Amino acid sequence: MSSPTSQDLLARLAQVIESRKPEAGGDPDKSYVARLFSKGTDAILKKVGEEATEMVMAGKDGVADKIVYEVADLWFHSMIALAHFGLRPADVLAELVRREGLSGLEEFALRKVNQREKDEE
Amino acid sequence: MSSPTSQDLLARLAQVIESRKPEAGGDPDKSYVARLFSKGTDAILKKVGEEATEMVMAGKDGVADKIVYEVADLWFHSMIALAHFGLRPADVLAELVRREGLSGLEEFALRKVNQREKDEE
Amino acid sequence: MSSPTSQDLLARLAQVIESRKPEAGGDPDKSYVARLFSKGTDAILKKVGEEATEMVMAGKDGVADKIVYEVADLWFHSMIALAHFGLRPADVLAELVRREGLSGLEEFALRKVNQREKDEE
Amino acid sequence: MSSPTSQDLLARLAQVIESRKPEAGGDPDKSYVARLFSKGTDAILKKVGEEATEMVMAGKDGVADKIVYEVADLWFHSMIALAHFGLRPADVLAELVRREGLSGLEEFALRKVNQREKDEE
Repeated sequence: MSSPTSQDLLARLAQVIESRKPEAGGDPDKSYVARLFSKGTDAILKKVGEEATEMVMAGKDGVADKIVYEVADLWFHSMIALAHFGLRPADVLAELVRREGLSGLEEFALRKVNQREKDEE
Repeated sequence: MSSPTSQDLLARLAQVIESRKPEAGGDPDKSYVARLFSKGTDAILKKVGEEATEMVMAGKDGVADKIVYEVADLWFHSMIALAHFGLRPADVLAELVRREGLSGLEEFALRKVNQREKDEE
Repeated sequence: MSSPTSQDLLARLAQVIESRKPEAGGDPDKSYVARLFSKGTDAILKKVGEEATEMVMAGKDGVADKIVYEVADLWFHSMIALAHFGLRPADVLAELVRREGLSGLEEFALRKVNQREKDEE
Repeated sequence: MSSPTSQDLLARLAQVIESRKPEAGGDPDKSYVARLFSKGTDAILKKVGEEATEMVMAGKDGVADKIVYEVADLWFHSMIALAHFGLRPADVLAELVRREGLSGLEEFALRKVNQREKDEE
């Protein structure tokens, strides 16, 4: 059996976050995420700004564990924001995949073609 | 051959990003990511701050497509930062999964157990 | 004629910024501030987010000249935002002075009274 | 008697902030600023990032009072950061004045000359 992919893990985490919404029975007294949902848009977006600042500071410190921790915080709060707006990490991943074929990632597309041709030799 | 959906999308994107590093042959004149790597830590972290601000503004506008686009930008630049520090999205996902078992996500663990028991009936 | 030091520096700078507004004849091709005004709200606010990130990074570096430079950038772009919304630095200073009498700065008020009484002895 | 200039007000506020430093007798249990100083560099810089995010959100809302309030918060925390690094608002104002003569503000310098010539007629 294969290990779960990043998209599986993000989808699972998104499911947890969804379950914290007030309408899904999330309890602001018991769950941090439910509390954030109950505070609304500005509170959620403020956290995104905060976590980005903390990630930048972790990056300046250059300590791996701290950077991982802060990026996790940033992504986690981005996902709360996505859920707040009825969106899912799958939407973000689709956007990232879509860009692979565009100008910014053109070299990747080229390398893939080259690799495939090589594999088929 | 595996289908596209069975691939780990973030791992694949991280691989593209890695290939843009100067030491991997990334060309700052041809690739945006390579150029960012060549500029160094501050330029990369500054982009994380910028993209977070843009995500916050998109959130205030409340337009779904724009939010997805900006979260994609934020995650993409977070991944460039991770690569810059020798880290991978898998490290971030592991941290997020690790938290599932902790206080903030305790309800999820409980629901999973309940669901599994129900599935096994 | 008043000496340079008796002029209100922020008011003078705000006046320069006002003169860069399109309706005041500011030319986006010649002036950075005029160009920013012509781009509108999001471009101006994005700069505030950017400059804050740069200030945080300068703070992490702890280099005095750099910190001064980045705070100047942050305040300068805050003032462009104020002007964009028809506000002036004097409004911000009034708010800061107003707070002096409030809880957070109560000690200052007390010290001032004590100092005055001492001065009057 | 003339009203205090912005530089006077900022200098006075900087003095209040200085008085909150632990070494000046600031008490973290009684003063918010003293508490922030006692927490150190990251806590102070994090607040700058937070307040910038709040200002950006206030700008998106376009409500004057809120914008003034958030810029006041941003400047206030910038001044705590300055004090933390042994700097003063006067240093920032000097940098802003210095820029008046440079490219970005060349039009201002020109207008001043024109105005002076007109005043001397």
